[in-house]
Amino acid sequence: MRYELYYWPSIQGRGEYVRLALEEAGADYADVARTERGMTAMMKMMEARSGAPPFAPPFLRAGKLVIGQTANILLYLGSRHGLAPKAEAGKLWVHQLQLTVADFVVEIHDTHHPLGPSLYYEDQRAPAKKRADEFWRERAPKYLGYFERLLENNGGSYVTGRRLTYVDLSLFQIVEGLRYAFPQRMKAFERDIPGVVDLHDRVVARLNIKAYLASPRRIAFNEDGIFRRYKALDI
Amino acid sequence: MRYELYYWPSIQGRGEYVRLALEEAGADYADVARTERGMTAMMKMMEARSGAPPFAPPFLRAGKLVIGQTANILLYLGSRHGLAPKAEAGKLWVHQLQLTVADFVVEIHDTHHPLGPSLYYEDQRAPAKKRADEFWRERAPKYLGYFERLLENNGGSYVTGRRLTYVDLSLFQIVEGLRYAFPQRMKAFERDIPGVVDLHDRVVARLNIKAYLASPRRIAFNEDGIFRRYKALDI
Repeated sequence: MRYELYYWPSIQGRGEYVRLALEEAGADYADVARTERGMTAMMKMMEARSGAPPFAPPFLRAGKLVIGQTANILLYLGSRHGLAPKAEAGKLWVHQLQLTVADFVVEIHDTHHPLGPSLYYEDQRAPAKKRADEFWRERAPKYLGYFERLLENNGGSYVTGRRLTYVDLSLFQIVEGLRYAFPQRMKAFERDIPGVVDLHDRVVARLNIKAYLASPRRIAFNEDGIFRRYKALDI
Repeated sequence: MRYELYYWPSIQGRGEYVRLALEEAGADYADVARTERGMTAMMKMMEARSGAPPFAPPFLRAGKLVIGQTANILLYLGSRHGLAPKAEAGKLWVHQLQLTVADFVVEIHDTHHPLGPSLYYEDQRAPAKKRADEFWRERAPKYLGYFERLLENNGGSYVTGRRLTYVDLSLFQIVEGLRYAFPQRMKAFERDIPGVVDLHDRVVARLNIKAYLASPRRIAFNEDGIFRRYKALDI
């Protein structure tokens, strides 16, 4: 089956967590909104007046199913492609961790958009600075310290133990993104999360991920996505 | 089996979405942190150095399982207690909607905490006012308009059709909470979402929910929770 991924065509954004899973799995997929007339198709599906119209991208068409919400898509893909356990307990645990990553992603986004997603960054520079300071003082240590602790205690190379899951791919993306958006702050902070950084390095070295990152399918970070490099927020 | 719910004892917060599901289902559960030494037990589980320590409350102990993240708990409970379909497609759809509610809950919270959850409201009044304005101009209409559209189009009384799911219970809570926090704004806005308001009324009338709301198990809204009544944000 060929999957169809629907996501904004010019950013990594939340779609990237799905792309990484599809790429690691070697799954066959189309990144629909990046193809001709793909955006029109995407908008049409969201405006549907019957069926299961998603609230927002990303969403995935898998045969007859249309699945929205990043973590929900990963829940669906995970056990089918060896990126999560098939048994309920393990499946719920991996999903729980992904939802925690999702919460963190919202807080990362809010460093540059504390007054809401519908205003420009340029209209909220001062509150963004305050929120970014708070993020690095309190929130990044709390979230990444949590994953660091899991890595320390489980005796394995991956967050849930000996086997790679989609959460590990997402944590790779978090490290990449924070390095892009906050190069100075992240440089200093990485000393506190050696396990997470090692995990990042193990993910980068995987053949399918390496090939993906070097391909044109990987969109570059930019200032329309979740991770934005604004110098004022990095000091 | 007696469930154990772990959540902050003095607020509805995110725990309330789980409480509503347990109550509607007539499930046997203890609200552990509201019992003697319950808070200590809760903190201990979060600090565990092995197993599956949750990042934050709420979490649910169900036999040997400890399940964290509100939407994940509901995913687990839903198909066991007739609050979601058992088949995969329906299960994923209901979960997807719950994750959309969860995103909305973050945005509701951020109306009074735009600079982050670790600072006081009193230290962020001006940005909170801006964020609340933006919330009511853009975000509430977008989210609640989406659920209104689903209710219009599915030909049933509930968000996913003819059967009540945990998402309906959560939408009831959203309406209750917005009425508490923003009485003026909500009064005007309810005209635009008659289907959601009807849904709220149908949920209130359910026997188990009615009994729960009248019981001491239902904590009153207050200014430590998600929905806070700050006059300055309601005008």
